[in-house]
Amino acid sequence: MSPSLGDPDFLLPERKARIDEVVSHRTRTLTVVMEALCDPQNVNAVLRTCEAFGVQALHAIEGPQKRFDRNKKISQNADKWLDVRRWASTRECLGFLKAEGFAIYATHLGTDSVALGELSFAPKVALVFGNEHRGVSDEAVALADVNFTIPMLGFSQSFNVSVAAAITLARAVDRRVAERGRHGDLSETEAQALRERFYLLAVKQRTRIAKAERSEARRERHAARAKGSE
Amino acid sequence: MSPSLGDPDFLLPERKARIDEVVSHRTRTLTVVMEALCDPQNVNAVLRTCEAFGVQALHAIEGPQKRFDRNKKISQNADKWLDVRRWASTRECLGFLKAEGFAIYATHLGTDSVALGELSFAPKVALVFGNEHRGVSDEAVALADVNFTIPMLGFSQSFNVSVAAAITLARAVDRRVAERGRHGDLSETEAQALRERFYLLAVKQRTRIAKAERSEARRERHAARAKGSE
Repeated sequence: MSPSLGDPDFLLPERKARIDEVVSHRTRTLTVVMEALCDPQNVNAVLRTCEAFGVQALHAIEGPQKRFDRNKKISQNADKWLDVRRWASTRECLGFLKAEGFAIYATHLGTDSVALGELSFAPKVALVFGNEHRGVSDEAVALADVNFTIPMLGFSQSFNVSVAAAITLARAVDRRVAERGRHGDLSETEAQALRERFYLLAVKQRTRIAKAERSEARRERHAARAKGSE
Repeated sequence: MSPSLGDPDFLLPERKARIDEVVSHRTRTLTVVMEALCDPQNVNAVLRTCEAFGVQALHAIEGPQKRFDRNKKISQNADKWLDVRRWASTRECLGFLKAEGFAIYATHLGTDSVALGELSFAPKVALVFGNEHRGVSDEAVALADVNFTIPMLGFSQSFNVSVAAAITLARAVDRRVAERGRHGDLSETEAQALRERFYLLAVKQRTRIAKAERSEARRERHAARAKGSE
């Protein structure tokens, strides 16, 4: 009997192994907060970078004007594999994260800011990236445990937010391995739940691809017949 | 007597001090090669990141289709402060850099590739980033001293090239400080030449801004008179 659609047995063993490997690198003890980003291209580039660095959960605080927008082309569908939680206000979002035990590190140049290289990633950390034009809000700065900056050596005043997120996350992963012993750190229960969810997503993806292939084959047969009867 | 246009004395002391500081962080012993990038947005994002990390000289190898294109909005004019040399072929460009004593590190996943974290930045290093779709060419891989990759922990197969360049350069700056004692390392002769060039560019910029301000003021006076005579 062939496996039914929706059945994880429908997945090739290599695909399952790949999912298991990805899950082994996932973490929920490092997270990213996007505060009122206005460019969907930036939002989606940050999602893609988080996915590539194993950051499973993200938080998007809605800006006054634009809603969080999902762009498949840029994120390359990365958010399908992530948990993105939306918030109406900075206070609610950071309040939640503090209650969950996260240290809040906001990208902000102030008198008490420290350089990225000085940050400790021993605790659970939420990295806050601000709006492209205004930076992080005064509220985020006030609620943050630490404000930090990426040292800029040239005339440029700032990095693009997706570049800043990538530089910060690369550093965070290195430091977590050094300070915590490892980056990926889901509990076995969390890992099992995520593996099952990813298997299901992968089966759905495979089913869609199989359908697309069948209808493409049909189109080709029709085209061949049409050509033959010309 | 007021200073004449083109005279560095036309610059405010703070502006001169800023230029001197930027020059103190500049280097010509770390460089970036963009091999046949096809998206001007990526090219210009890489320029902006190089500028922010003090990398003074870059090399652009022309692709078969598109010419290197400069986009002021994205690079935020960063290339004005950089030396970008164009090359018709990978062989010529990498041959020149090898003759200049650069170790060639190409971003490429092969059987002998090493992780970014394993790279030494003690020597003079040229980092090669490849085309968005094809990656670096076989020729670049063969000519490289080392092929390296940024470890990917998720389902994504690759970073956007400007993100890859940013992560790599951030790491390179850190490692250079650790391994060479400092990142910015122009000789006093090189630094003096660059300071003078930047003063001149800044004077030109200031002159343009002053002209724009004068013509804006004129427009406003005309508009006020026109309103007054209504």
